[in-house]
Amino acid sequence: MSRSKCTLLSGALVEQLLDSVDSVLFDCDGVIWRGDQAITGASEVINLLKEHGKKVFFVTNNSTKTRKMYADKMSSLGFNVTADEVFGTAYCCAVFLKTVCRLEGKVYLMGSNAMKQELEAVGVQQVGVGPDHVSGQPIDWANVPLDPEVKAVVVGFDEHFSYMKLNRAMQYLVQKDCLFVGTNRDTRLPLEGGKAVPGTGCLLQAVETAAQRQAQTVGKPNHFMFDCLAAQFGVERERCLMVGDRLDTDILLGSNCGLKTLLTLTGVSTVAEAEAHRDSGSAERQGMVPDYYVESIADLLPALQG
Amino acid sequence: MSRSKCTLLSGALVEQLLDSVDSVLFDCDGVIWRGDQAITGASEVINLLKEHGKKVFFVTNNSTKTRKMYADKMSSLGFNVTADEVFGTAYCCAVFLKTVCRLEGKVYLMGSNAMKQELEAVGVQQVGVGPDHVSGQPIDWANVPLDPEVKAVVVGFDEHFSYMKLNRAMQYLVQKDCLFVGTNRDTRLPLEGGKAVPGTGCLLQAVETAAQRQAQTVGKPNHFMFDCLAAQFGVERERCLMVGDRLDTDILLGSNCGLKTLLTLTGVSTVAEAEAHRDSGSAERQGMVPDYYVESIADLLPALQG
Repeated sequence: MSRSKCTLLSGALVEQLLDSVDSVLFDCDGVIWRGDQAITGASEVINLLKEHGKKVFFVTNNSTKTRKMYADKMSSLGFNVTADEVFGTAYCCAVFLKTVCRLEGKVYLMGSNAMKQELEAVGVQQVGVGPDHVSGQPIDWANVPLDPEVKAVVVGFDEHFSYMKLNRAMQYLVQKDCLFVGTNRDTRLPLEGGKAVPGTGCLLQAVETAAQRQAQTVGKPNHFMFDCLAAQFGVERERCLMVGDRLDTDILLGSNCGLKTLLTLTGVSTVAEAEAHRDSGSAERQGMVPDYYVESIADLLPALQG
Repeated sequence: MSRSKCTLLSGALVEQLLDSVDSVLFDCDGVIWRGDQAITGASEVINLLKEHGKKVFFVTNNSTKTRKMYADKMSSLGFNVTADEVFGTAYCCAVFLKTVCRLEGKVYLMGSNAMKQELEAVGVQQVGVGPDHVSGQPIDWANVPLDPEVKAVVVGFDEHFSYMKLNRAMQYLVQKDCLFVGTNRDTRLPLEGGKAVPGTGCLLQAVETAAQRQAQTVGKPNHFMFDCLAAQFGVERERCLMVGDRLDTDILLGSNCGLKTLLTLTGVSTVAEAEAHRDSGSAERQGMVPDYYVESIADLLPALQG
């Protein structure tokens, strides 16, 4: 089926699109909030969607929070959301290790306390969270004591990332049967005012370079996060809408999973970038072209209030 | 000119090759020593080459030692070597910043004390050496105080590599006029017994991913280290031999600079790998095929003693 892509969503089109879906997946940062500030009108949109009987889910590559931490943050900002509607990479990574990898053994975790909690919640033991400073000489690093029960290295966002952690991950990963999983490949974590700090993708690149192996990644645009929520909630992909601010993660996830896609301009990507993908003639880049775009998800409000 | 490549160097060929060159460049680790142990016969080879009137140079990607530290180590192992014959990336990086980049300003240095010393020896000021642990929140990291005099980020081997250092490098590098230089791209530092630890290439990948920019690199296989010694000693490239244990750095440097090349099998690469490059049909891979190979540089001894 051919249809025109990257269309401004307005007027009667909004209602038409909402009527065509039962579930709406939202990215968080740049879509429903920026940092600790909710996007104006976002909580009303989410709450009204649910009042209209839509299933609503939150799909985020950020690995620094548990589902509960997300739900608590959302509640404090006026969103009517429960933890089981939240699919972050900390949680999804734990599910991936249990259900896809069928991991039996511990994880060497380069990641946050939130990841540790989500792993433990599904019964996966881990080692490695927190600082790990270097000492000694190269031969001592090469002979660093390893936990023989570790059967996987997992890389998420880790502010305590260090040479010693990189080395420890490498020493586990030279064992060929050691699994290698990353939460996501986002190269930067965008902050207020155009600022940013290095993202998990940088840490993962360093570990992959040392290990001379590629990690499997759980986060967007990989389809696993959608599979994860679809399995739990039985959603029908033809009747799902993915809403996000990034073409290379959110919109590509939607395309990869056969969902309808909506770009919102309150975050990273622009309409010009989307149109450049559309007009590139590259088949590969068509997955990054959204079906529709809005200035803000608040633009859905009139149709929901009508 | 076509000639057969990857030939075992033995018998009369040795003398013939040595007669055809005035200068011999040696990689260090895996060639003249392994760790702290000299390769048997290596010091005799070096000392005899010099007695025969050959210029001898040492060209190493390792950035953790100054020229003087190398010369001291060599002396203690019986090599008759002076500091000005040693071209390590710590020293060459300092020369590169002064002569090629014509840097006016400070360096944010992700690297060793040896690099700091070599930079200071050519009058380049630096900040950043030593531990830099994380504290605070992402917005604090994005607003980390920067030194306004810093005009270049330099990445070498840094056992104190940390998230905060990665972040600091990125914050400098988002300034478009900030230079970006790496010592080398070696992904692993090989140690005794087949062991290894992560190399500078891993750290550089992380910084490049965060900065969304590529660094210029000084080390092998880039031609700069040869240019550097050729400028100082007036060597004639047609009469130079490069001796190394790695096809992708040492032999490729030799090919890139139009030198004769000799692979020694006391380190990383094998004859099978060299032959695979030769027989690949790939023009790009021909630069990694040595003219000759030996089991050990000790195989040059008979011709030198004769």
